[in-house]
Amino acid sequence: MEKTYKELAPPQRILLGPGPSNVDPRVLRAMSMPLVGHLDPYFLEIMDEIMELLRYVFRTGNRLTIPISGTGSAGMETCLVNLVGEGDEVVVGLNGFFGQRMSEIVRRCGGTPIEVKAAWGAALNVESVEKALAESNAKIVALVQAETSTGVLQPLSDISRIIKNHDALLLADTVTSLGGVELEIDQYGVDISYSGTQKCLNCPPGLSPITLNERTIEFVKDREGKIQSWYFDLNLIEKYWEADRFYHHTAPISMIYALREALRIIYEEGLEKRWAQHLEASRALIKGLNAMGLETLPTKNNLPSLTAVKIPEGVSDLNVRKTLLNDFNIEIGGGLGELKGKIWRIGLMGINACERNVILVLEALERALRKEGLSVKPGEGIAAAMEAFEE
Amino acid sequence: MEKTYKELAPPQRILLGPGPSNVDPRVLRAMSMPLVGHLDPYFLEIMDEIMELLRYVFRTGNRLTIPISGTGSAGMETCLVNLVGEGDEVVVGLNGFFGQRMSEIVRRCGGTPIEVKAAWGAALNVESVEKALAESNAKIVALVQAETSTGVLQPLSDISRIIKNHDALLLADTVTSLGGVELEIDQYGVDISYSGTQKCLNCPPGLSPITLNERTIEFVKDREGKIQSWYFDLNLIEKYWEADRFYHHTAPISMIYALREALRIIYEEGLEKRWAQHLEASRALIKGLNAMGLETLPTKNNLPSLTAVKIPEGVSDLNVRKTLLNDFNIEIGGGLGELKGKIWRIGLMGINACERNVILVLEALERALRKEGLSVKPGEGIAAAMEAFEE
Repeated sequence: MEKTYKELAPPQRILLGPGPSNVDPRVLRAMSMPLVGHLDPYFLEIMDEIMELLRYVFRTGNRLTIPISGTGSAGMETCLVNLVGEGDEVVVGLNGFFGQRMSEIVRRCGGTPIEVKAAWGAALNVESVEKALAESNAKIVALVQAETSTGVLQPLSDISRIIKNHDALLLADTVTSLGGVELEIDQYGVDISYSGTQKCLNCPPGLSPITLNERTIEFVKDREGKIQSWYFDLNLIEKYWEADRFYHHTAPISMIYALREALRIIYEEGLEKRWAQHLEASRALIKGLNAMGLETLPTKNNLPSLTAVKIPEGVSDLNVRKTLLNDFNIEIGGGLGELKGKIWRIGLMGINACERNVILVLEALERALRKEGLSVKPGEGIAAAMEAFEE
Repeated sequence: MEKTYKELAPPQRILLGPGPSNVDPRVLRAMSMPLVGHLDPYFLEIMDEIMELLRYVFRTGNRLTIPISGTGSAGMETCLVNLVGEGDEVVVGLNGFFGQRMSEIVRRCGGTPIEVKAAWGAALNVESVEKALAESNAKIVALVQAETSTGVLQPLSDISRIIKNHDALLLADTVTSLGGVELEIDQYGVDISYSGTQKCLNCPPGLSPITLNERTIEFVKDREGKIQSWYFDLNLIEKYWEADRFYHHTAPISMIYALREALRIIYEEGLEKRWAQHLEASRALIKGLNAMGLETLPTKNNLPSLTAVKIPEGVSDLNVRKTLLNDFNIEIGGGLGELKGKIWRIGLMGINACERNVILVLEALERALRKEGLSVKPGEGIAAAMEAFEE
């Protein structure tokens, strides 16, 4: 007998991992709107609005502020492949998994990463970035504002000043911050940045919003050698998003609908209110975790959208995550790279950054830890978190 | 006063251009299902099913048959970037816009395209491909089965035999054929192929299904030098789709839901029935166009999913397309590259390959041409098309 494929019926998860996050029903509804062509007058209007709304969440006046047709990693590759050519040195901040990935991509562009290191769980310090710039010919500094692998928020303003002194460009990964964590592209002096849709924007994965200023656009145009990627060549992509609307590739229409709706929700709600909600929820979560005897990986510079928690001695990473998923329909993330098996990653992103989810994840964790033989006093985590919310 | 962004309300277009095509409501509904994580047990099942269903439409047993997280052009780049390195010669078929694009990407990979030419509107001939192979060191032949820019269907079986004789690999672009036009990856001897979702599969744009056989996988693994793209590196992507499920990038969950549903519809309906519907609809369309005095660009090897029609002398390309869009909500495509202003491209793809759309586009064209001052006898096109449907 032939195999039959059942109707799609995904379980209703509470997505508190490193992304994707849950998606507002309005965004799901936007995706179910009928398609138009990628050069349809209606779609061209949508593209203009997407650019405006992305400028709003990035806090930038940058003309070239657009979604790349791929996930966050495609955005990373887009930025690097346009900036870096054979033999170029690039200062890369290495304090987590995504810094490592940037280093790897720099190498694939034929460049040499000058790696500035900090412990996984700490932020980079300004002095080591300055030293790397002084001792190399690098004209680009690439670092991660929101390290999803460690839960560290990298302060950018001081580093940006140093970079300007060396006449270099600052490339910042804002995948896990955009729309949820304080980010001021223009005020911080970030020259180019890429993000993702499936984190604090509460949009499905599949697009990578990027922004770059005129100085960076000039840098890309003046670079020697051809950009090695055709799909990610910003000189070509720009022409489709600018007045010409010159065909490059077929835009992912439904995903663009989704992103517009996700951005519209943030615009209506107010970006600063969002930032405050993320801060409030993560502070309450950390208080709750601490009250249960759990420690966060970073001792400072905690990323509001993602909290990395150390797994207590003797507790099985996988068992706990399975309990959360099977008994509570809650997804949290495990560790990546050298932190595999050592931390959990709890994301409270966008609409997920709320009291209800803090309560649920603390209760679920408490039960899972008890199942693992740990003695956790009932309700202490939640009590501490609720107190924090009421402050 | 602050700008407000209106609710999304796209016009209901009949999408008879080169893609995107219209999407079945079932596919739109699938996209509005709640998200799960990209490593969720439920999603891993969906991934297995996607691979099975893609093997069904590609007519292949290839293990590595997966969607790439980008549009059709991303699939093109994925194939070439994994096969072609510095100094490699690649035979590229050049008889349309997308062959040109392949040539361009080969160059960006550091390779040298050995271009085999035919007129835009004709298929490549076997002898010139053989000659190019004999006179070069090329180990890859890249060509377009379904040239969306010219409406030509390239026969593959004979060319494939020649290529095998030279121990080379055949890479075929099947963006506009998959799911609508006869395609037998294994039987034709195609070694690697990429496609798109927004054509005969009636799924929104944003994914590129690809398939490659073991011989090609070995070729990629044994290649000298690093694959220049990280995002498109098949060695890494394979690990996420294989048993390991090793994290590479966050899969575009909602698009994968959509693709599964689109493939499920074809699976339920039967692939061969689909092929027959496309053939029938395109033959009727061409009879109708001819009866109205219009000629197709190809004189043979007509691509069933896309018909290229010559624009009659003195008729404005843009005016006619505007009339179709504004008066009938019908989108058709203009020409690309050297065919700009010279042809229209009418796509009857997937669920759009039906009697109703043939009638509508013929009636709309008739009226638009009359508006342009051409004397077209009322109803002759439709009458001829209906006759063809009844044969």
